[in-house]
Amino acid sequence: MKLTRRYRFCASHRLDVPQLSAEENRRLYGKCNNPYGHGHDYVLDVTVEGPIDETGQVADRVKLDEWVSAKVLQQIDHKNLSNEVIGLKDSVATTENLAKLIGDSLAEDWPLVARLRRVRIMETDRNIFELEMA
Amino acid sequence: MKLTRRYRFCASHRLDVPQLSAEENRRLYGKCNNPYGHGHDYVLDVTVEGPIDETGQVADRVKLDEWVSAKVLQQIDHKNLSNEVIGLKDSVATTENLAKLIGDSLAEDWPLVARLRRVRIMETDRNIFELEMA
Amino acid sequence: MKLTRRYRFCASHRLDVPQLSAEENRRLYGKCNNPYGHGHDYVLDVTVEGPIDETGQVADRVKLDEWVSAKVLQQIDHKNLSNEVIGLKDSVATTENLAKLIGDSLAEDWPLVARLRRVRIMETDRNIFELEMA
Amino acid sequence: MKLTRRYRFCASHRLDVPQLSAEENRRLYGKCNNPYGHGHDYVLDVTVEGPIDETGQVADRVKLDEWVSAKVLQQIDHKNLSNEVIGLKDSVATTENLAKLIGDSLAEDWPLVARLRRVRIMETDRNIFELEMA
Amino acid sequence: MKLTRRYRFCASHRLDVPQLSAEENRRLYGKCNNPYGHGHDYVLDVTVEGPIDETGQVADRVKLDEWVSAKVLQQIDHKNLSNEVIGLKDSVATTENLAKLIGDSLAEDWPLVARLRRVRIMETDRNIFELEMA
Amino acid sequence: MKLTRRYRFCASHRLDVPQLSAEENRRLYGKCNNPYGHGHDYVLDVTVEGPIDETGQVADRVKLDEWVSAKVLQQIDHKNLSNEVIGLKDSVATTENLAKLIGDSLAEDWPLVARLRRVRIMETDRNIFELEMA
Repeated sequence: MKLTRRYRFCASHRLDVPQLSAEENRRLYGKCNNPYGHGHDYVLDVTVEGPIDETGQVADRVKLDEWVSAKVLQQIDHKNLSNEVIGLKDSVATTENLAKLIGDSLAEDWPLVARLRRVRIMETDRNIFELEMA
Repeated sequence: MKLTRRYRFCASHRLDVPQLSAEENRRLYGKCNNPYGHGHDYVLDVTVEGPIDETGQVADRVKLDEWVSAKVLQQIDHKNLSNEVIGLKDSVATTENLAKLIGDSLAEDWPLVARLRRVRIMETDRNIFELEMA
Repeated sequence: MKLTRRYRFCASHRLDVPQLSAEENRRLYGKCNNPYGHGHDYVLDVTVEGPIDETGQVADRVKLDEWVSAKVLQQIDHKNLSNEVIGLKDSVATTENLAKLIGDSLAEDWPLVARLRRVRIMETDRNIFELEMA
Repeated sequence: MKLTRRYRFCASHRLDVPQLSAEENRRLYGKCNNPYGHGHDYVLDVTVEGPIDETGQVADRVKLDEWVSAKVLQQIDHKNLSNEVIGLKDSVATTENLAKLIGDSLAEDWPLVARLRRVRIMETDRNIFELEMA
Repeated sequence: MKLTRRYRFCASHRLDVPQLSAEENRRLYGKCNNPYGHGHDYVLDVTVEGPIDETGQVADRVKLDEWVSAKVLQQIDHKNLSNEVIGLKDSVATTENLAKLIGDSLAEDWPLVARLRRVRIMETDRNIFELEMA
Repeated sequence: MKLTRRYRFCASHRLDVPQLSAEENRRLYGKCNNPYGHGHDYVLDVTVEGPIDETGQVADRVKLDEWVSAKVLQQIDHKNLSNEVIGLKDSVATTENLAKLIGDSLAEDWPLVARLRRVRIMETDRNIFELEMA
């Protein structure tokens, strides 16, 4: 049985690779290269998997929410991903890199019996990123 | 080719394990332990899989809808899951247990050529449960 | 300038008028007359109106949220509307009556400068109730 | 890492198998057999999968959008699927057959490094079709 | 108190004014001028207004649904608006004209105590039409 | 007849009133006061009203889209509202002030026969701002 919990956060970012020319950055990222940054309302789906326990649940929601809040939401909600988020400062703040950072952060010292199976981020309703966890 | 049909139903429930203390039940289920119950508008996605037949379809929608209606919707729509639904009376009416009951009910004597592949229930837009069928 | 804030709550209810016969109640309310009750995920939109103040806002969100929480959400979230909610116990717990109760509760001692203009409840995505406030 | 991009198009169709009787066609397809046709707003999700490259992306969005536009949207958007779309003229214009046509069209001479993994079409919010790509 | 009920239908149409040149029709309606037609999933919201009656309701849902079904849905669902719908055959099947036709059809011999207040059609999630009823 | 067209844009902002203390700014705007800014996906609804013309339309969509694009979207899409948008630089970039700026920009030299009636912005699905135009 899989359980997916949905979380929301908003953040700003700017897509820019320092090693590339200004022109190439504009071609690659379009309006997302705007120097002043822009932002999104992100939707984050965290999926865990396991058997149903004696309380009729796959996972304790309170514990799951606390973990996601401590490891992810408190680090990135209402933040500038390009300037403020450790782990994204040295790379481009694309949602691909953000998804990888979130997956890694959640997986480290994972505290639940149910396994972490998937991290999915909807940057907008047109761009959805999905990372299956090993 | 997979086809997912979406159904909706509403129901009430109360989450409570008789073997546990009142305090532990409150900690586990929070407001969902309220003795008078509460309710949700559930969304149910049923996914079948198979080749495309000569009518250009994976499955006959009329037959699939009749099956889901007879085996699931007529049993649980506008019902109190904790008091009225056979198969949930002796367990906690969590959506995990409900998903399992729905998967088992649909699978028994499954009448279509296309295979039953997945049952997914959205309890709210924050809690999604998914059961892959063997 | 109007500001609408959206809130969510879930609750159960049963539609039944004691003065009417069982048959008439069934005809009037259909499956909503089920004696054991059923439930919904309700969406509540509260609209206030006023000029933009020096902070660039129509209303202080913190104060508005506290008011809606104290006067409405804490009274009805995860409750059985027919049995537990004062102000609905003696009437039918239709969403019309619930909307009126919510409008009256919010309006009494209204603490903000911006005026309360509208209360809207979506019982399901097919049934929407709207009350303009005087 | 998987990236899903969402596209929209609208089209009309009529479901009818010439080899079957009028009565059988009506039973099979119901109102979708109406001789004058009807239509839908379709949502198309295209999923690609691959490692994150040095630009922090799974795939170049501009190139992906150009490919989907050239191979799919320009062929079917605002079209009559039963009469105008090559590849559907000789079969029934069900969404199953449309999904297969879209998958085949995208896969032929696929120009990106990231692999094409999945094509999903929502005909309405009740009928969702999914094709995993080999 | 206002009650809004939501209905759905799908239909196809072609936008074309016979008195105008082919070129002007293409400029005016763009891809919607395609001779073979195209289609949409329409959402129809019907709003009625009145006092709450002794059953706790603004209007009897069964009666309202029957009226909308008889006067509107049975005439246009799964139809070709340009060729099959009386009242649109002699005009362009824009959603503006469709909204007017629906408003007129509903208002004629309106059978409920609650007043018909508004007809709203969402052609797509980008085009919304609203008609206040006198 | 009213026509509402829906547009989308994303942007970042920071809420801060220079005349107020840092502490008061934090109390007023909470996480929205974060110095590095954050962002949203905004939805903009523009409503026009008028009679149906001989083309069956309230307004020419091409002209309306061009106007909204030139006067609004090109000025604010993928921008930092607090630093880059003329008309917001000297005030707080709340969505109230943004809505007023958009209403004023659209109304100046309004080029359509149909009247501009309403500007509505959804900052998130919980915060909706509406401005009726005179």
